Amino acid sequence: MKLYGYFRSSAAFRVRIALNLKKLNYESAFIHLRRGDQRQPGFLDINPQGLVPALEVDDTLLIQSLPIIEYLDETYPEPPLLPSDAKGRARVRALAAMVACDIHPINNLRVLRYLLRPLGQDEAAVETWYNHWIAEGFGALERLLAEGGRTGRFCHGDTPGLADIVLVPQVFNANRYQSLDLTPYPTIVRIYQTCLGIDAFAAAHPDRQPDREP
Amino acid sequence: MKLYGYFRSSAAFRVRIALNLKKLNYESAFIHLRRGDQRQPGFLDINPQGLVPALEVDDTLLIQSLPIIEYLDETYPEPPLLPSDAKGRARVRALAAMVACDIHPINNLRVLRYLLRPLGQDEAAVETWYNHWIAEGFGALERLLAEGGRTGRFCHGDTPGLADIVLVPQVFNANRYQSLDLTPYPTIVRIYQTCLGIDAFAAAHPDRQPDREP
Repeated sequence: MKLYGYFRSSAAFRVRIALNLKKLNYESAFIHLRRGDQRQPGFLDINPQGLVPALEVDDTLLIQSLPIIEYLDETYPEPPLLPSDAKGRARVRALAAMVACDIHPINNLRVLRYLLRPLGQDEAAVETWYNHWIAEGFGALERLLAEGGRTGRFCHGDTPGLADIVLVPQVFNANRYQSLDLTPYPTIVRIYQTCLGIDAFAAAHPDRQPDREP
Repeated sequence: MKLYGYFRSSAAFRVRIALNLKKLNYESAFIHLRRGDQRQPGFLDINPQGLVPALEVDDTLLIQSLPIIEYLDETYPEPPLLPSDAKGRARVRALAAMVACDIHPINNLRVLRYLLRPLGQDEAAVETWYNHWIAEGFGALERLLAEGGRTGRFCHGDTPGLADIVLVPQVFNANRYQSLDLTPYPTIVRIYQTCLGIDAFAAAHPDRQPDREP
């Protein structure tokens, strides 16, 4: 397996965590998003969407982080990343989607760049935008996690799974600007810290990738 | 089962199609998004995220359209909305995610409103934004569908599934502004038209909902 990723892509970060939790070995190809490698014909021929992550499995290219992780979970069932009951799976997938659909895409690099140009917003407006959507999403997520009887050490019970895999890179992003106060989200912060104490999460951290930059 | 939805919400549209394909009966509760019903305490107590769709099943509220549809597919297996092989499922989920993560959230009502205020963009800039993200996503999607040996009458083979369920409401949205030329996306348009010829899709259309408005 070969993972096309970028150290700072939080969607690639998710797939790295999943691969580590499953103890799977993989090759890495680094697509430098800030330099625009994803828009070069070489990569567009591989993935027409021009986004990372993408995972090459045999002759097939899998794209989109959540579908990739579902594939890994179906193909390498241990340890499971989803609960064994349908309602539990719906809960975990929903927690993941609250980040993967309702926060992350709105704060993606290409969207932030569009705000700067053509929309002509300044860096301060972009930072406010960024924090706004995290706060919107985290407010609801905190309430669901804090009130949810099924939350444990992790988002769902006492073993890490899909929701944690998606949450951790988003908290990492929230910390990057340093200007978003995470105090209103104690459950999110607690789960984040618990996850980073686990090798599979820690080794997937952007700061520990070969293509990292200051 | 009770579906909290809004006629024009494309995420609710998805769930209506899935319920129809599975031939499931359900009650409806209409949450008027333009009037702000989703921000009223009554609904926030039901769904803290303040978004539709949400599906009440027994005592459990399921949220987020894709996890709801996966739940329905697991619980009511016929007709299946995902292929029987893991790579096929990864393909269909990825096609769905290309719309559900990379187009729809960026063009959601709350984001468009943020562009108007506080960002102070005018209606024309918002329309350009709207069309830009659809064109970005549809360009890649068209290429994957046109080149993909597994595309058939529908996004994957000759029976409708998750990818079609997500695609149809997005094409409906693209048509709403009337200003996006869909000529570059013949495969997408062909699949859209094929789907609308099926009762389950047609009956889920916004124009046929009890809460529709002109």
